[in-house]
Amino acid sequence: MRDVYVAGIGSTSFGKHVATPIESLAVEAAARALVESGIDRADIGALYLGNFISGPLNGKEVLAGIVGERLGLQNIPCTKVEGACASGGIAFRHAWIAVASGMCKAAIVVGVEKMTHASTAEVTSALNCAMDNENDGPSGLTFPGLFGLAWRVHAKAYGTTRDDVSAVVIKNKANGLKNPLAQMGSVLTHQQIRDSAMIADPLQMFDCCPASDGAAAIVLTSADLLGPSDHARVRVLASVQTSGSPRIANHPDLCSFEATVSAARKAYEQSGLSPADIDLVELHDCFSIAEIIDSEDLGLVPRGQGGKWAAEGRTQVDGTIAINPSGGLLSKGHPVGATGVGQIYEAVRQLRGEHPNQVANARVAMTHNLGGTGVACTVTILGRDA
Amino acid sequence: MRDVYVAGIGSTSFGKHVATPIESLAVEAAARALVESGIDRADIGALYLGNFISGPLNGKEVLAGIVGERLGLQNIPCTKVEGACASGGIAFRHAWIAVASGMCKAAIVVGVEKMTHASTAEVTSALNCAMDNENDGPSGLTFPGLFGLAWRVHAKAYGTTRDDVSAVVIKNKANGLKNPLAQMGSVLTHQQIRDSAMIADPLQMFDCCPASDGAAAIVLTSADLLGPSDHARVRVLASVQTSGSPRIANHPDLCSFEATVSAARKAYEQSGLSPADIDLVELHDCFSIAEIIDSEDLGLVPRGQGGKWAAEGRTQVDGTIAINPSGGLLSKGHPVGATGVGQIYEAVRQLRGEHPNQVANARVAMTHNLGGTGVACTVTILGRDA
Repeated sequence: MRDVYVAGIGSTSFGKHVATPIESLAVEAAARALVESGIDRADIGALYLGNFISGPLNGKEVLAGIVGERLGLQNIPCTKVEGACASGGIAFRHAWIAVASGMCKAAIVVGVEKMTHASTAEVTSALNCAMDNENDGPSGLTFPGLFGLAWRVHAKAYGTTRDDVSAVVIKNKANGLKNPLAQMGSVLTHQQIRDSAMIADPLQMFDCCPASDGAAAIVLTSADLLGPSDHARVRVLASVQTSGSPRIANHPDLCSFEATVSAARKAYEQSGLSPADIDLVELHDCFSIAEIIDSEDLGLVPRGQGGKWAAEGRTQVDGTIAINPSGGLLSKGHPVGATGVGQIYEAVRQLRGEHPNQVANARVAMTHNLGGTGVACTVTILGRDA
Repeated sequence: MRDVYVAGIGSTSFGKHVATPIESLAVEAAARALVESGIDRADIGALYLGNFISGPLNGKEVLAGIVGERLGLQNIPCTKVEGACASGGIAFRHAWIAVASGMCKAAIVVGVEKMTHASTAEVTSALNCAMDNENDGPSGLTFPGLFGLAWRVHAKAYGTTRDDVSAVVIKNKANGLKNPLAQMGSVLTHQQIRDSAMIADPLQMFDCCPASDGAAAIVLTSADLLGPSDHARVRVLASVQTSGSPRIANHPDLCSFEATVSAARKAYEQSGLSPADIDLVELHDCFSIAEIIDSEDLGLVPRGQGGKWAAEGRTQVDGTIAINPSGGLLSKGHPVGATGVGQIYEAVRQLRGEHPNQVANARVAMTHNLGGTGVACTVTILGRDA
């Protein structure tokens, strides 16, 4: 496997794009990435598109081929990949494989979702496609229910409090305020969070990411095709995809995801790095408590201390480990298939030193994308070349 | 890229499996392939699942992870890929890449679809997700409409008659009668076909493949992990994926698919073979006229002669080129995401000399899987080792 570099990035804003067809969102992000890369379209050998639920929500599939045609890419393999909320991260990994294996000179990945035009019932029903419905369906458990349960277990095992979890919300909403691509951002108080609507006790409104529309794209290539650029060169140091049990009853620990733990271990092995080397992470905070669990599963925070570290400000942009300086899913929004690619977009901007909420001297960044009940996970480590 | 071999194959019957959950169909086929391969599950490094419309029709996604867990595959990347009717072929190609690139010792691909429980309106609506709905939606054109148009163009350009096209139907229905996995098979007369219901003039009922449930699976590995076997060794000589314009207005010729033409050219290049070397082909006869077009696009029959060759019996199992000895989509059925993998299952049985409708001395087989309006295509060439 040869070294793979980020040649170009692009993203739409995340939020409401009700009047824009889903393929147009993907094309906007992909065209930006292509133009920025300066790479000839004839050198793009593969397109991967991450998407979860365009079929149920938009009545559209074969989006990879449709987007490839709109971009003027001729006859190349265009493939949609799906792994629930990890669809974008999985698509990125396949573009990385295409270049790392030497099969393609360059490849493009685009993640996209369009959800806000649909009713809450339609969105909830579509999102539930990511459950193991044969086994867990009869329990009636939804995703907020699952993460509410996880919170209860975390609280019991480690003493995590409402205020600890609120510290995650307050940080990510404040970070989102600095990110022009984010769907929302705000200055929140502990009291406002406590006063917000109860969703799945103890999860409240502000603990949940919103439904969103949006797309993000990355062009990858090898060192020899990388043209001159004003940007620092960003290299993929690790790209890992794992799976875990979709059945909630099979999870040995409700506040840890096996797929994340194994993906992080493999990513550290692949890169030769350790958690101490990571300057920032964009991780899968679909719910506030998920950030706490993920930060522990990734080895970035000691087990059980995720809530405390948040409360102590150690996960702020200038903390021990900057977590979700983009605002994360809680602020940026969660256009499902776009999220994993959007995280890498944010990480690249940090490593180039051009992020609107910059982590000082960021040299190594991690991204973490988790699907369903932990059934699919990707972890990516990116580094700025010296 | 190293040589890749077929280590094991498995398939459910294609037809109606109304009471079986979609993931159980996939698991049945995959477990058969795994057991036949004799490969240790710990050596399976990736699972690819081809599926098109389980979201809209079954309310289920993340099927790759769910099936991986049911099979006892631990923590490996499990990825669903989608490219409309070519989803299965695309999934196969990704399993091939996983082994050919040296990333995995072995990989498994499973294609699956479950459609017959849904109403005709639901199935039609779901299948139409494969159209370029922003551009072609307003025309009201459905897939039968598109292939009806293609037929008219073929008839005008090359003099293809109802009886020429009926020869395809009669052959594939008779072939299906010999295939225990096929959904249907029958001895049909020209008159019966002429008397069948008109669907999209000139396409009639018997010209259309049925909606189906089913799954097929293949285990791939390299030469060194291939154990002793009673079967002849089958090697992948070419695995190609291309794309074409999803917009019907962009097709320069309504009775040729650019994606097929370019995939075939690349497959011949990759294998070093020519059309004359192909003993049999399993190709994408979603409609009878499609078999005629595909056989020409693949270079197996001279341009414009597809109908005549069928009428002259030159595409029979003992003809110049055996086309769809399995019965094809017309008889086997078309469980969309399973079709491309099922074609390879049939081809492998031919090359092993164990097919219920055996092509004498078959040494090289081709499969061809076409998605949507020609937006995605895979061509695979398989050879029996000397």
